[in-house]
Formats: sequence, C-alpha cells, structure tokens
Amino acid sequence: MTSILIKNGYLVTMDGVGNRQYGDILIEGRHIEEIAPKIDAPAEKVIEAANMVVLPGFVQSHIHLCQSLLRGQADDQPLMEWLDTITSLEFRHTPETLYASARIGIAEMIKSGTTSVMDMGTLHHQDSIFTAIEESGIRAQAGKAMMDLTENLPPLLRESTEDSLEESLDLMRRWHGKADGRIRYGFAPRWQLWNTTGLLKEIKQEADAHPGVGIHGHAGEIEYEVEAMIAQTGMRNLVYLESIGVVGPNVQMAHCIWLDDDEYRVMSETGTHAMHCPCCNTKLGSGIARVPEMLARGINVALGSDGAPSNNNLDMFIEMRLASLIQKYRLGAEAMPAEAVLRMATMGGAKAIGMADQIGSLEKGKIADIILLDDGGLSASPLRSFEEDDIVKRLVSSYQSGSVRTSIIDGQVVMEDRQLLTMDEAEIIADGKKALADLWARKLADEAH
Amino acid sequence: MTSILIKNGYLVTMDGVGNRQYGDILIEGRHIEEIAPKIDAPAEKVIEAANMVVLPGFVQSHIHLCQSLLRGQADDQPLMEWLDTITSLEFRHTPETLYASARIGIAEMIKSGTTSVMDMGTLHHQDSIFTAIEESGIRAQAGKAMMDLTENLPPLLRESTEDSLEESLDLMRRWHGKADGRIRYGFAPRWQLWNTTGLLKEIKQEADAHPGVGIHGHAGEIEYEVEAMIAQTGMRNLVYLESIGVVGPNVQMAHCIWLDDDEYRVMSETGTHAMHCPCCNTKLGSGIARVPEMLARGINVALGSDGAPSNNNLDMFIEMRLASLIQKYRLGAEAMPAEAVLRMATMGGAKAIGMADQIGSLEKGKIADIILLDDGGLSASPLRSFEEDDIVKRLVSSYQSGSVRTSIIDGQVVMEDRQLLTMDEAEIIADGKKALADLWARKLADEAH
Repeated sequence: MTSILIKNGYLVTMDGVGNRQYGDILIEGRHIEEIAPKIDAPAEKVIEAANMVVLPGFVQSHIHLCQSLLRGQADDQPLMEWLDTITSLEFRHTPETLYASARIGIAEMIKSGTTSVMDMGTLHHQDSIFTAIEESGIRAQAGKAMMDLTENLPPLLRESTEDSLEESLDLMRRWHGKADGRIRYGFAPRWQLWNTTGLLKEIKQEADAHPGVGIHGHAGEIEYEVEAMIAQTGMRNLVYLESIGVVGPNVQMAHCIWLDDDEYRVMSETGTHAMHCPCCNTKLGSGIARVPEMLARGINVALGSDGAPSNNNLDMFIEMRLASLIQKYRLGAEAMPAEAVLRMATMGGAKAIGMADQIGSLEKGKIADIILLDDGGLSASPLRSFEEDDIVKRLVSSYQSGSVRTSIIDGQVVMEDRQLLTMDEAEIIADGKKALADLWARKLADEAH
Repeated sequence: MTSILIKNGYLVTMDGVGNRQYGDILIEGRHIEEIAPKIDAPAEKVIEAANMVVLPGFVQSHIHLCQSLLRGQADDQPLMEWLDTITSLEFRHTPETLYASARIGIAEMIKSGTTSVMDMGTLHHQDSIFTAIEESGIRAQAGKAMMDLTENLPPLLRESTEDSLEESLDLMRRWHGKADGRIRYGFAPRWQLWNTTGLLKEIKQEADAHPGVGIHGHAGEIEYEVEAMIAQTGMRNLVYLESIGVVGPNVQMAHCIWLDDDEYRVMSETGTHAMHCPCCNTKLGSGIARVPEMLARGINVALGSDGAPSNNNLDMFIEMRLASLIQKYRLGAEAMPAEAVLRMATMGGAKAIGMADQIGSLEKGKIADIILLDDGGLSASPLRSFEEDDIVKRLVSSYQSGSVRTSIIDGQVVMEDRQLLTMDEAEIIADGKKALADLWARKLADEAH
C-alpha cells in the first residue's frame, strides 16, 4: 500500500462546516488516513505544498468524451443545426477515433483539476471510452448512449430497444466496479424524446438493483424540447419521468433550464440531481438554469462542461467563473457567492455521482481525490495570505487551470508539477489530430456515395 | 534602428479583408516594414514562429490600473456597495501603492496579450501610473480621474473644477506624446453624475485642440444612473453629452448598457466609441450591452475588462469568450461569431484609442504591436491545421492567455517565451502584496480616528 504525505498546504476541505486550515494530509493506499496541522508519519512519497492550496478534486458532472475530437467543429450554430453537424461526425467513430477522443478530453480535464467524470458516450464502441478511463487513472461513471426511439433519424442514429439494453447491460457487467470501484456504469438515455418508456423503466430497475449504477440523461435543455415532450407524452420532462418512476438519487439530469415549479418539486422530493452546464447553455443560446432557486429548494446541483464542441473547453475554472457571473447577471451581484460555486464543483458533483460519503471533500476516511494548486500567480495577485484575501473567491474568479500543479486520484499521483504521469500528452494531441482527420474523411466519403 | 524578423508564422492580420496567411513579418524600428510569404532580409533578431499564430496585440479599452491592488476585495457585492468598498481603498493610494497597483495590472495584461491600454486613473498621483506605463513599454492612453461635482461624497473623493482641470492639463502637457507617442493623455471624467457641465465642455475643447488626446468616461453602466441623470440634467447620458458637445471620435464611453435608441443615434452620428466590459457587467449585475445592435448601427465597440476588482482578471481571452457567450444567450448561437469578437479586441480598440491607421491589424507601415501565440495545446486540440479548423474560433472559445508566448510593442520585445523583459514579475507580485497591506492599514487607521 502506497503512502503519500502532503506537507504544509492550505487545505480548503469543503467539508460540512467549510473548514479551512494550514496542515498536512496523509494518504494510505486509496484513502485519506489523517488530516492535521502537522503529521510526522513516514511516507513513501512526500509532496511539499507550502504556498499551495489543497482542494478536493473537481467532479465534472456532464461530459461527452466522444465529442472531444469535435471541438470547434460547429461553432456559431444554433442547437439543432449544431446537433446535425456534431452527430454526423460523432456517429462515425471507429473504436480508434473514439479512444483518441476520450483521451484528449480526459487529459484536458486532469490538467484542469478534474478527478471524477460523469460521461455519456455515443451509440457504439463504448469499450474504447472505458479503456481510456481505466488507463488514465481518472474516476468515472460512463455508459453508452441509448437511442431506441429514433426511427425518424438517419440510420446511423438508430438502435432497437433490445439491442440498446443488451449492449448496455453487457457493458455494465464488464465495467461497473472495475479498477477497485474507480469505474462505474451509468446508463445514458440520450433524452426522453429519443427513448421509449419501456427502456427507461427497464434501466431504472437495473440501476436500482446495482448499487452505484446511475442513469445519466438530459432534461429541459431547450424550450423546443418541452413542447415536443408535451406533444409526445402529454407531460413535461420531470413529471413524465416521475410518472414512470425514473427519478431518485441515482438519476442525473443535465441542463435543467426549461423546468417549471412542478418539475422542481419532483427533483427535490425524489433527490434527482441537476447538472448545470453554464458555458454550453449560453453558447448554444439555450438559456440560463435557475440555479439559486434550485439550490434554495434543496435540489442538488453539480457543475459540468458538456462536450468540447458546446463549450469549447473541459475546464472547471471556466465553468465556475461563468456559473457565478450568469447568476449575478440574472439576480444581482450577491447571487452565487464563490463558496456556493466551489461547492457545486466538488460536493455537488460527489452527490450526483452517488459518492458523497467517499469523495468531494477532504476528510479522514474519504478516498484521496486531491488537487494541489499554486497561489494563482500574477492573475490572482496581490494576495496577502490565503485567509486574509479569501482564496475561495480567487479560485472562482481569478484562477486559471494552469495553477493546478499536482493531481491525486484514488491515491495515485496522476499529474505532478503539470506533467501527466499516466498519459503521454504529445502523443494524445498527435493521435487526436489524426483521428479527427479520419472522422472527416469517413464523413465526406459516405456523403460522396 | 532595431530590426526584427518573425519567420514562418500563421498571420491572422485582422486587416480590412480579414487576410490570413503563412508568412514572415519584418519590423524596422517601430514599424512593420514588410509582410510576405517569405522575407530574406537580414535582421538583428529573428523570431521563429513555426506552428505559432501571429496576431495584432489586443487593445484593452477600459481599465482602472489604480484598482489592480484591489482584486477580490469586494466580491459578491452589488455595484453601489462595491463602489463604497473600492473607493474607500482606491482614494487612499500613496504614489508608491499606486505605482505597485499599475505595475500588477500592466504585467498581467502584457502576459495575456494586451499591447495597448485605455486607462482611467484615480484622483491623484497620476505620475505613478504614467511612470509604470513608460517603464513597462506598454502603449497607453491614461489620465487622472476627474470628479468636480462630488460635494455629497466623502472629502477624499472631492476636488474643485479648477484644481481638476489644472492638474489634468499639467499632466497632459508633461505626458501626452511621450516615449515617441507611445503614451497619450486621456481626460477621465468619472461619470456625468460627478462632473460639472463646465468641466466637460472645457476638456472637450482641450481634446479637440490636441490631436490624439481622448476623453474617457462611463455611460449607462447601471439602470439607476439613467434615472439620476434625468433627475440631474433632464436627459439621458448620450443625449446630455450631445447637448453640450462632448461627443465625437475622441470621446470613449465605457459600458453603454442602459442606452436607448436615441443615444445609439448620437453615438453612430458622432463616431463616439463604446467600450464593452462583459465580465464586469455580469459580475456586478449591471446588465448586458446590446453589442450586436450597436455594431449593426455602425457604432464602434471595443472590448475591456474594467478594473481587477470588477472582473477579476485583466485578460482579453476571458473577455472575448464572455463577449461571445452572453450575446449568444441573448440572441441565439449565431450572434457574435468569433471573427467579430476578435475584431472588437483588436481593430475596435484601435479605433477607440484613435489609432486605427497605426495599430489594431498587421499591415505594412503600421506600428509593430504584435503577439505570438502557440497552437493552444491540449485545450485547443485536436487542430488539423490553423486554416482547416479556423483558428480564430479557437482563439475566442478555447485559448487561454498562457498561449501568448511573445509580445512586441512599438517594435520592442517586451515578453519573450513568457518572460517579461521590461519588468521583474516576482518583484511586482511582492511589491503588490506589500502595497495592499499598506492600503488596508491606512484605511483602518483612518477609520479608527
């Protein structure tokens, strides 16, 4: 069992009382063994963290690793047009291009302080994504996209209910719990408009029967979706999901912009989670989720980037800043203070992935998912001290991801002084470039036929 | 005369036709001597720019260098309360603390690709700001804040019309045109609510009489301001300014959120410039300026950060991203495409500072204000090539300021491979920390009396 001792850091624990202190953290194996002002235990590895901020790693609560290759491929296009462009490429993935796509996204996230990911895959080749996750050392819930009500869409975007379930269950059996539980399965029904009620009910039974398995979908991203849901089911998203029993602490819904009060009631009564994606929602002109109102109702809200082409980064510092700014714009400058934003990015995500008792804060006994940041440099200066000038405000409003120096996931150092240890950054970039060219070539060849 | 040859860059010229090409740039002294696919002239310094993007430097069109020390000191507070906190510190500057404040801001801006700045100072000690500008090598229009209608405010915030004019004119005579014209004077009336009509008319006459001198103020930042203007003058901001003749190409107004159609008419008819500050405007809950509408009316819009405490960075990449996102939120994903955003940050600023014929684009004969950026790394990958994947979209939506490697201002290399050459970064950070502590000590001592 490896032991790591982090010395002399400024620990922003994000625990229940928001404790912050100078001190040391001892990691034994996968877990935090001790947190104290001074620890003198021997350790195989000592990380000096003087003048550094030590945080629980960020939980990226909504992402499509399958889209990382497609960064910037549909900019300045509205959502439905954007979706046409992106799907025309996403659904042409080979196992190789999908692996390259996942690795680009995971590397970007580790470098920007993310230690856990909640991913929705594409229809096929999901093993590529799980393999990339396993190798990288990142914690993830992931699952293949499910789309069994798509007979009006192009053939590439269709699958039968039976095939969808069979492939998903096979993946769950093979991947859920792997790597000492670092990998989790999450059923990923694309959105309610593209899934049968039967499929949704079925996966809820499976998720309930398999602790730690989630259901990861989209709800209320655009106004049009609500009209279409009413036309299709007679109900709005969350009310429909409640009516078929697909709600609860293992259900995670991205966006949650176009929700009404009754849908908020469903979420708070059932413990269904909201994943807020501020960059994506503004970029695609979708709207601004009423996050402070959701938090006030006791709904858990986590923070996410969505896929690279709808953002165009996978960087929690960018999301935190924007999550703060857009609510201040809506409600005034007091809205979404920095502490609340950082809480969404850490404990909010930990709750959403169903691991509130294991990650999301620095506490004795929790799993060691920890990031170390420098003092922010020029962009966050002058700083008299981490306490006097409230470092949490700087983290949300002044820090950039380059300040993340070291990252530990599941007790393993995956980045040290900005060098990725589990992945070769130059190789990932080169592979991504080649894979993107392949994807375009396949699309153009298909269209020429 | 120094000569610099930039070799093999991808030149995003931002010229009238938006020309982009691979090529070389020869700088002789302060000017661009030649731009061509291949230049073989001898040069004292050769900068290899293969796999780099070469851009005109950004023009930061609205900033308060006097506030850089105050980053994060009034977060999560609404504008009027924020203003109380910030002014209680800003107006206690000594020449030393003000110098430290200016240097922090200038260093952060150079490191993020800004080559020109339009600054509003505080009431006194303006020489400190000009000295920091002169030493740093940055191009700037700056001027002391003018506040001659502030009898209802605390004594520290008051000055007579006569004193305000006298001090401003003295500064203009001593600083305007200095450093081969790199430094310009800009009268800085704080906002119309705090200035007499007499003062505004007087400085307009002076600005008209001294080519290159600007008038730099605020207009329509918050809704309350409009009501107060109507109560005070019977008119809204721009209509009032038109009525007293304080409009035209040498007049620059920050924010321009709460403007009506008649005020847009004034701006477009007179060539008065708007400086758009998206982070500040959302952070303080002020609103969102209707930028696409202003551009459609032919109003020149430049991009700015405002002071560090209302942002909390001085980084044009952050402003560009948000300038794009908030308009897409308002108007749909097609609004504010990347090219238009980059144009605001370069030529928009060049026009606002009155130097459209000299800076803002890479063109033969223009002054050499040039930045070199790497390919964006992981955060902007995969990128097949700068053309195939439209690097301008990546610059606006995926790049971070760490990609700015080298900066040339007025033909002088001020940063090379991220090392500042005219300033000592560690010293600036240390001085800033000390100055901030001094400022707080002075405030607390005054309040204890």
